[in-house]
Amino acid sequence: MILGNDPILLTPGPLTTSLATKQAMLRDWGSWDAAFNRITASICRDVVRIVDSGDSGEYVCVPMQGSGTFSVEAALGTLVPRDGRVLVPNNGAYCARIVKQCKYLGRAVVDLPAPEDQPVTAATVSAALAADPAITHVALVHCETGAGIRNDLEGVARVCKQTGRSLIVDAMSSFAALPIDARTTPFDALIAASGKCLEGVPGIGFVIVRKALLEGSAGRSHSLALDLHDQYVYMQKTTQWRYTPPTHVVAALRAAIDQFLAEGGQAARGARYAANCATLIEGMKTLGFRPYLKAEVQAPIIVTFHAPSDPAYDFKRFYAAVRERGYILYPGKLTQIETFRVGCIGAIDSNELRNVVGAIADALRSLGLRDL
Amino acid sequence: MILGNDPILLTPGPLTTSLATKQAMLRDWGSWDAAFNRITASICRDVVRIVDSGDSGEYVCVPMQGSGTFSVEAALGTLVPRDGRVLVPNNGAYCARIVKQCKYLGRAVVDLPAPEDQPVTAATVSAALAADPAITHVALVHCETGAGIRNDLEGVARVCKQTGRSLIVDAMSSFAALPIDARTTPFDALIAASGKCLEGVPGIGFVIVRKALLEGSAGRSHSLALDLHDQYVYMQKTTQWRYTPPTHVVAALRAAIDQFLAEGGQAARGARYAANCATLIEGMKTLGFRPYLKAEVQAPIIVTFHAPSDPAYDFKRFYAAVRERGYILYPGKLTQIETFRVGCIGAIDSNELRNVVGAIADALRSLGLRDL
Repeated sequence: MILGNDPILLTPGPLTTSLATKQAMLRDWGSWDAAFNRITASICRDVVRIVDSGDSGEYVCVPMQGSGTFSVEAALGTLVPRDGRVLVPNNGAYCARIVKQCKYLGRAVVDLPAPEDQPVTAATVSAALAADPAITHVALVHCETGAGIRNDLEGVARVCKQTGRSLIVDAMSSFAALPIDARTTPFDALIAASGKCLEGVPGIGFVIVRKALLEGSAGRSHSLALDLHDQYVYMQKTTQWRYTPPTHVVAALRAAIDQFLAEGGQAARGARYAANCATLIEGMKTLGFRPYLKAEVQAPIIVTFHAPSDPAYDFKRFYAAVRERGYILYPGKLTQIETFRVGCIGAIDSNELRNVVGAIADALRSLGLRDL
Repeated sequence: MILGNDPILLTPGPLTTSLATKQAMLRDWGSWDAAFNRITASICRDVVRIVDSGDSGEYVCVPMQGSGTFSVEAALGTLVPRDGRVLVPNNGAYCARIVKQCKYLGRAVVDLPAPEDQPVTAATVSAALAADPAITHVALVHCETGAGIRNDLEGVARVCKQTGRSLIVDAMSSFAALPIDARTTPFDALIAASGKCLEGVPGIGFVIVRKALLEGSAGRSHSLALDLHDQYVYMQKTTQWRYTPPTHVVAALRAAIDQFLAEGGQAARGARYAANCATLIEGMKTLGFRPYLKAEVQAPIIVTFHAPSDPAYDFKRFYAAVRERGYILYPGKLTQIETFRVGCIGAIDSNELRNVVGAIADALRSLGLRDL
């Protein structure tokens, strides 16, 4: 390991955060205190503005303790009626998780399998909805980080609007990096988390949801802790979280959003990640690596590469060799093909990604791997 | 506010943590990385040892993202069969929350109301069990911080063992401060959290549970996120958390436990809190305040005081005046009587509590409050 430095996380959350974000955790906050609750309120306001640039007032943000998965479950359990029927276009691990959640919650689910290297399109969803008119909701993963693919959120939103279906978007790894505008991409609920492209630390998620829809969702949740309606109503009434929030995580998210806004918001952040991604792919190609996805469907969040075909290749040894050189890779998540993943997000720029390529080249040499 | 210093939190979590604990959050950890997963494993090991001093090997610790309430719900939903029947001796707000959780989960619950100023005893529980043989589980809050009372965990555990009932203990605010030994106080599950008497920051809870019981609990949970069995099985298999953990919170908890052990473990921590509590009560009595609870049932965690009877008293103004002097109080949580609460836990000692009394005296003077 590099002396004096922790390795850089090339993982799609937790990711490497700025020192300013971490330093915001050097203070203790009372969860009942007004100073803290102003932070929560300001986060909710700023988060809504990222996708509701027209300030329509139609959406509210409800934060929820736990990982992003907790917020997805909270959204499904609170917003989908018990007799609802959810279509899940499924081209990866995070889509599959939503299918699993629906089954836990006893909500009827239509699992629509799709190839991991092909984006979910408006046409696919449109055909599935036409074939099954009983479907009430579509749950779409915007950027499926299993492979790193960008699904056609805009097209699917259009289809949902045209056919009167409710759209729930898992935007965990795209929110704040890829453009999403409720004016042109209408949705009912959109879920993201603190430790992704906002570059906070992990510990809370949030659901941006149509206020009118949420207000009509009382008494539906399977869970007290994950009852989004109850969380919202209590917070509206008291300004406080219902149950102890991870105060330091919240303070770090405030600092992270300040930096996000100072950087220039979603456009600037998306541009930095796109540059990171381009630098990474270009450099890796020079070494002989092949990206799993075609360029036109690759989201600039995390890149899946085919593992070296050299019989001496072993992910654990490769991981360890790259880690010694200062970088933490991510294992592949595809079912059929041996791959590994490299994240492009976090408080890193394209200089860092160039160094990553250098570190990987050096790791390959040290392991004697030639045949990529 | 005191220049250059944040106010001290006299709240029962989040609480004031040491600088060393907060500084542990100045690093980013990969949730897939072995270095991080060793931290998780070491926390689980150390946490079990606090209550299983005989190292019986019968208990495991399963950590869970979210506030302590999330872990209580995870324990109830995973460990109580769907046809179970839960007795909740109810002498405060946290007992009432368990009743509410059982209702959300569709578990039959027997709500046994008890006065807020009287501890739950073995006799009370014994009589309730005799009257309703269908009860399968008892859910006991050890220290009910609504009033600050210490319930008779040892006695209730004895009754549960004698009558073959499963005991689930909400030890949120007593764990690591009050003595609990599984050898003499057998329980099936015990729930606590990072941001309480271990003096970590809030963000995770954990359930210490009989391994054999947990292993028989597959497929029972109402929730994927809060499925304790699934969390356990995955962690056993991979050493990792199922879903992104709040890595910084976990790192801070490791640092906090190191300090807990260095201080001398539960005995030393309990003694420090007892001294804090005694100093506070003695000082407040000198000012004319009356504690709500009798000394013999007062837990050394948080103290409820009767609000001044002076008609000019207003909690918000009193709170603000004490806050300006460096301390954050906690509102009362009793339904009938006007009170406020002062916590004794966190990285504070009896010198601090003496200063608290001084600050409260000064606040009273500044507000012109005389009649206590």
